[in-house]
Amino acid sequence: MSQIHYAVGVDFGGTTIKTGLISSEGKIIAQAKVPTMGDEGPKIVIQQMQKSIAEVLTHAKKGKLRGIGIGSPGIVHQQDGIVFDPPNIKGWHRVALSREIRKVFKVEVKVENDANVAAIAEAKFGAGKRYPNFLFVIWGTGVGGGIILDGEIFRGPHGGAGEIGHVSIDYNGLLCNCGAIGCVEAYIGQRNLSKRAVEQLKNHPTSRILDLVRGDISKVEPVYISQAALEGDQLAREIFTEAGTLLGVALGSALNTVDLRVVIIGGGISAAGDFVYDAIKKSTQAHVMKSMRKDITIIPAKLGNTAGMLGAAGLVL
Amino acid sequence: MSQIHYAVGVDFGGTTIKTGLISSEGKIIAQAKVPTMGDEGPKIVIQQMQKSIAEVLTHAKKGKLRGIGIGSPGIVHQQDGIVFDPPNIKGWHRVALSREIRKVFKVEVKVENDANVAAIAEAKFGAGKRYPNFLFVIWGTGVGGGIILDGEIFRGPHGGAGEIGHVSIDYNGLLCNCGAIGCVEAYIGQRNLSKRAVEQLKNHPTSRILDLVRGDISKVEPVYISQAALEGDQLAREIFTEAGTLLGVALGSALNTVDLRVVIIGGGISAAGDFVYDAIKKSTQAHVMKSMRKDITIIPAKLGNTAGMLGAAGLVL
Repeated sequence: MSQIHYAVGVDFGGTTIKTGLISSEGKIIAQAKVPTMGDEGPKIVIQQMQKSIAEVLTHAKKGKLRGIGIGSPGIVHQQDGIVFDPPNIKGWHRVALSREIRKVFKVEVKVENDANVAAIAEAKFGAGKRYPNFLFVIWGTGVGGGIILDGEIFRGPHGGAGEIGHVSIDYNGLLCNCGAIGCVEAYIGQRNLSKRAVEQLKNHPTSRILDLVRGDISKVEPVYISQAALEGDQLAREIFTEAGTLLGVALGSALNTVDLRVVIIGGGISAAGDFVYDAIKKSTQAHVMKSMRKDITIIPAKLGNTAGMLGAAGLVL
Repeated sequence: MSQIHYAVGVDFGGTTIKTGLISSEGKIIAQAKVPTMGDEGPKIVIQQMQKSIAEVLTHAKKGKLRGIGIGSPGIVHQQDGIVFDPPNIKGWHRVALSREIRKVFKVEVKVENDANVAAIAEAKFGAGKRYPNFLFVIWGTGVGGGIILDGEIFRGPHGGAGEIGHVSIDYNGLLCNCGAIGCVEAYIGQRNLSKRAVEQLKNHPTSRILDLVRGDISKVEPVYISQAALEGDQLAREIFTEAGTLLGVALGSALNTVDLRVVIIGGGISAAGDFVYDAIKKSTQAHVMKSMRKDITIIPAKLGNTAGMLGAAGLVL
């Protein structure tokens, strides 16, 4: 009987560390969830991570551990496993994370930024299995992305490829958090979507969004707009249709630049319903080179919030 | 004594075919120029090309011919050497160009699209020699481009990467020839620059541009605006500064997507003067991720109108 191969995948989040023991086919054999404890600083955070890895490894009765993969926020130097300035972790400027983990577990440890990890997960185990080349987009608080070429993550010369959220859609447009003008994230990120909804609610006093926040417009955020859209609320659907249309402009620019045809979109906001994907597709087709139009494919990600663990494991599988 | 290695590089243009015998160091040993005769159809065009290749080969007294490279307009299927629908060639829908040339010369023949060929030329012999990774932009009638990664052309999965002219800078903007909205080419391509100048000339009756076209505004085109800018004309400089600023928006989006820092810009319009590069750089820096800003390098191409021949030869050298 051939030996089972598996890996540990760590989804290093700002509030929770989710860790999975993953088979080489992408099956989750065991998982653990611990608080990140970012307020306690890097040393404690690393201990939490080690604890959760040790916990899932108790389920690895037989078989061969291929290594540990970690999907991390912040700027990741993938080659040397160093993580810089992850948001929400107090006092973490520069930590050689892979070395810290290797100290305890003595196996190969790879670290990658979280958007790339989710892209890898979809490529290996999710909606991207059929597509050797695609752009992965994670649309949540912000808009992130990763590029898969020939089934592998394309990091670019400096490890930062796929920043689809900072593709400009208006040279004379909104100011983005990043300091640039017109980034699509400034339009369709959580903050601006909520703002748009609040503005529009004045003219839509019967919108389902208002019920969902019990009339408190300070509570309006995409999760409620999304829920209202799913329930057929017209205003909510308009807001997401408009946002999807704007996302399509940025996707068109990126696909023209990298010569891709397929976009896989995950993240919380993408849950609003199929009509969002239709709006994104229509707009993307209108913004790519004519010869590409008929092949444009816009599909939802498959793995939801297990993508982080699975993709992290995929780094070493 | 070691043998000389050389290649033939063919710059297949709409009106002229320029062919060079090129050494492996990028020296032009001999060159020939024949009319394309596009009105006569593909058979005659191919004969013209064969004639010019034969002519430069008479100068190849000794040494080893590595092959023939061709930079072609139209859509190029690089792997099988087929060229589809080059503009200005009557009746050319689909021609297996490399096979036609190989029939006569019995050596390796490679065909590549003309923007990629110019990018390869700058990478191997020009302004890109120092830079393993850059975006090449050719700014003339339209705006084309090519991506160099690790010193090699990055074609993308379908051979069409680097279409920087069709990066959108305004989701609500000008209609491009390609049918999409807001492509940077619609703003800074030859047609719109001329139109902008004509509009502005009404308010600038003393502009040097008017002298250069002898008062005939129907003759206004970028070559004159460029000449006027070089001579210090204020309106001409404003037009190019604005155009460079808009180009920088598209460059920012492309650099964020592919994770590049260096842009090399060639093409007729780029000859207006250093101030254009300054405007492009300033705007690009304002549109890339913060961490990239200090490394942004925007430089002129070096090879001018020999880039086509040199890059084509570079395909087989």
